[in-house]
Amino acid sequence: MSNTVNDYEELAQRLRDAELLASCASVLSWDEQTHLPTGGAEHRSNQLGLIAGLAHDRKTDARIGDLLASLESSRDLGDPDGDVAVNVREARRTFDRATKLPKKLVEELSKTTSLAQQAWVDAKKNADFPSFQPWLEKIIGLKREEAAAIGTTTGVPYDALLDDYEPGMTAAQVNAVFEPLRKELVALVSAIQQSGKVAPLEIVERHYPQVPQRVFAEAAARQIGFDFDRGRLDESPHPFCSGFGPGDCRLTTRFNDHHFNSAFFGVLHEAGHGIYEQGLPTAAYGLGIGQACSLGIHESQSRMWENFVGRSRSFWTYFYPTAQQAFPTALGGVASDDFYAAVNDVRPSFIRVEADEVTYNLHIMLRFELEQKLLDGTLLPADVPAAWDAAFERDFGMRPAKASQGCLQDIHWSGGLVGYFPTYALGNMYAAQFFETARAELGDLDAMFAKGQFKPLKSWLNEKIHVHGKRYTAARLVEVVTGKPLTSAPLVQHLQTKFSALYGI
Amino acid sequence: MSNTVNDYEELAQRLRDAELLASCASVLSWDEQTHLPTGGAEHRSNQLGLIAGLAHDRKTDARIGDLLASLESSRDLGDPDGDVAVNVREARRTFDRATKLPKKLVEELSKTTSLAQQAWVDAKKNADFPSFQPWLEKIIGLKREEAAAIGTTTGVPYDALLDDYEPGMTAAQVNAVFEPLRKELVALVSAIQQSGKVAPLEIVERHYPQVPQRVFAEAAARQIGFDFDRGRLDESPHPFCSGFGPGDCRLTTRFNDHHFNSAFFGVLHEAGHGIYEQGLPTAAYGLGIGQACSLGIHESQSRMWENFVGRSRSFWTYFYPTAQQAFPTALGGVASDDFYAAVNDVRPSFIRVEADEVTYNLHIMLRFELEQKLLDGTLLPADVPAAWDAAFERDFGMRPAKASQGCLQDIHWSGGLVGYFPTYALGNMYAAQFFETARAELGDLDAMFAKGQFKPLKSWLNEKIHVHGKRYTAARLVEVVTGKPLTSAPLVQHLQTKFSALYGI
Repeated sequence: MSNTVNDYEELAQRLRDAELLASCASVLSWDEQTHLPTGGAEHRSNQLGLIAGLAHDRKTDARIGDLLASLESSRDLGDPDGDVAVNVREARRTFDRATKLPKKLVEELSKTTSLAQQAWVDAKKNADFPSFQPWLEKIIGLKREEAAAIGTTTGVPYDALLDDYEPGMTAAQVNAVFEPLRKELVALVSAIQQSGKVAPLEIVERHYPQVPQRVFAEAAARQIGFDFDRGRLDESPHPFCSGFGPGDCRLTTRFNDHHFNSAFFGVLHEAGHGIYEQGLPTAAYGLGIGQACSLGIHESQSRMWENFVGRSRSFWTYFYPTAQQAFPTALGGVASDDFYAAVNDVRPSFIRVEADEVTYNLHIMLRFELEQKLLDGTLLPADVPAAWDAAFERDFGMRPAKASQGCLQDIHWSGGLVGYFPTYALGNMYAAQFFETARAELGDLDAMFAKGQFKPLKSWLNEKIHVHGKRYTAARLVEVVTGKPLTSAPLVQHLQTKFSALYGI
Repeated sequence: MSNTVNDYEELAQRLRDAELLASCASVLSWDEQTHLPTGGAEHRSNQLGLIAGLAHDRKTDARIGDLLASLESSRDLGDPDGDVAVNVREARRTFDRATKLPKKLVEELSKTTSLAQQAWVDAKKNADFPSFQPWLEKIIGLKREEAAAIGTTTGVPYDALLDDYEPGMTAAQVNAVFEPLRKELVALVSAIQQSGKVAPLEIVERHYPQVPQRVFAEAAARQIGFDFDRGRLDESPHPFCSGFGPGDCRLTTRFNDHHFNSAFFGVLHEAGHGIYEQGLPTAAYGLGIGQACSLGIHESQSRMWENFVGRSRSFWTYFYPTAQQAFPTALGGVASDDFYAAVNDVRPSFIRVEADEVTYNLHIMLRFELEQKLLDGTLLPADVPAAWDAAFERDFGMRPAKASQGCLQDIHWSGGLVGYFPTYALGNMYAAQFFETARAELGDLDAMFAKGQFKPLKSWLNEKIHVHGKRYTAARLVEVVTGKPLTSAPLVQHLQTKFSALYGI
């Protein structure tokens, strides 16, 4: 027993130190997105490359392999769902994945994506895909190398990348839950368009000055439970949430003077991620129990606060008077129901992060489709703009006028995040299924929201999801929390109920 | 020869990598001062401790010692003032200093000062010295350990610390140039007070809204030559400049709605540091030629732009109309000469960073005096507030009402920067002597400033000082640039000429 305890403690210390080092890179990346002057891009890329290499050295240290082998041969790890067994299991998963990647590839990916993100910022600003194309080619090449190095049991390279974000999930499984969802969404969008009813979108496109936007969004994030003593909000071209470690979680957003939704729902979304990060057990920092379950589960938290809570009628029963005070010119004469309809406008649009709850998942499916082809070589990076525009016209009935409205809109590929997009739609499905259960267990959530009471839901999420970290895979967590395997039914039901009422269908 | 070339290239690569790693800590420290939420203090301290330890490992790697020994035994290093010989000489100096410090002490200092700086922020805010006292005790203890580990030929512990900031300088040498300066300053302050003339200080204490303050200060920093494509300006409780590396130099300031000087001259000051950082040869990053000569020389650059340029009559001939446009309420009816007199008000005051050109050096001498006593044990940290207040009353004829106006005002000690303060007054002396020579070589600087032409001076500084990095010690650089050893005469002459005119003495 004492050997096992010593081995486990040494393993834990090594993992914590490796995570601590990696968290320095998180700070550098956050600064890169929020503050870096253009002239500093190359130096920052050198810094990130160095730290990525050092962190990789630590994560792949042969001593970790020895400790894992010794621990795995022991019979003292207790309950397989207990902290010790879970932390050992997750350490093994991470170690195997890391040791399969050559250090040179890790450093090359880090340096390339750092520079590519800067190039993407300029390319997007200038709607100039050709300037970004060489970076995309390089990144897809490196990600194919990564997939080959990791390997899969399915023989599908994409699965090797997806597994990094959604452990245990395959592209085939994603397609299996996406296809029924797609059918229902297409039908719902069509019904909404045929309803003849059009939301008063112009209300959210009035002038919303930045300072009250920021104050109001921060107040809402605080009210739903994001702790600003252990985090903050800044601006970046692409909004994100980065948990640096215990006590420090950074959210970003971007402000649009003439669109209320962009910053406000963006902040609720990132705050949802942040509440998850802040709810992870700090004592298990660097270990499986201290880490988020999967990106899809992470996204379920952000989408729950953004859409299931933030775009609900009851949320605005509570917040609308404050919104009117914050934006007297824009909202002074607007009825609460009209505002609620405006923030729930459904119509095909170009920009994913500003898309409504219904069409959002179609944006994701498009990216998922192109990514799989980029990975298996049936689509070349040079042909991405044409393929994007064609698929977009097929799904949304319209064509982006420029690449910044199309394939250049997202930061992900420039950051090497290939295989990441499907987790967004999975997140919507997880969120719907969790929310259905929360409502069944907690009672009338809408009555609580209407009184500004978000703590019951937040505490329920803390207790049912956050505190477990990676104890369960996403698929099992869904079953443990809701008693059922994942299906698209709760999401479809949520959308049909809500938008039938809004659009009178 | 080929061995020497190979050794030199390996040494250079190792030094660049070590500096690259250390520069990651600069980013983390900058963020700590500008953005860190309170809950993130402990994690940040862990991050900084880890990086400090890793950087220390690299700097003290035995391989560097071997390479240095091999290079030093070679006869191929060329001109002793040439790049190769200088880089080897400086690598030796740094290596010897680093190898004398136990890694445990380095990590302890890093962690302690990270936490102590957070404690200082609170202590200062609450004017609560007792809450900071344990940190000061711990830091002084650690700095005495550091001094003992480094050792000195003089037997004075303070010299071991001073040498880190002003290589080759001793406390005795500092006292030798400070004493004649002190006499002249005391006489000048007395003459100013007896002149009966009082500057219209109220002008700079009117309401100056923050947004135009920021815009105006940034415009001035840009005009004197700070490149915002390779740097930026943020806010922090204690203003500083941090060169992260090639292409990325960060300035900070703090805004006071009711004092024009605080942010504006603070920005010129930090921009002066930044122009030096931006003028260092990037090809020599991590090597002696790519590093600033000394802190005193660094300070000479900031003080030159802040005072010799920014507080000159000719500077305001050019900038005053813009200032009036930026602050129409405060300055609309104020004559240019009155504004010039107000920004050059001389009177004893509590806060060093807001002190005028004349009394500033007396603030430094007070700190220098206390620091020497703290180091040799004749002053205990617990007695610092009383000692500070007594010395302040002796030198300035008044007593701080609270510790935040006294011994808690500066961040330095909380950051472990003991032995640093004298470089500020040395900087003023260097600046005066450089400026005298620049004027002799470039012609009528005032005529240039009055037309907004700052490039001739900036280029002269680039060429005479910045581009040389650590080629010469500070003392030799002064002789090379000005043809004379350092004396206080140019500073005294500058102050007497300027303030005799302003105060009619």
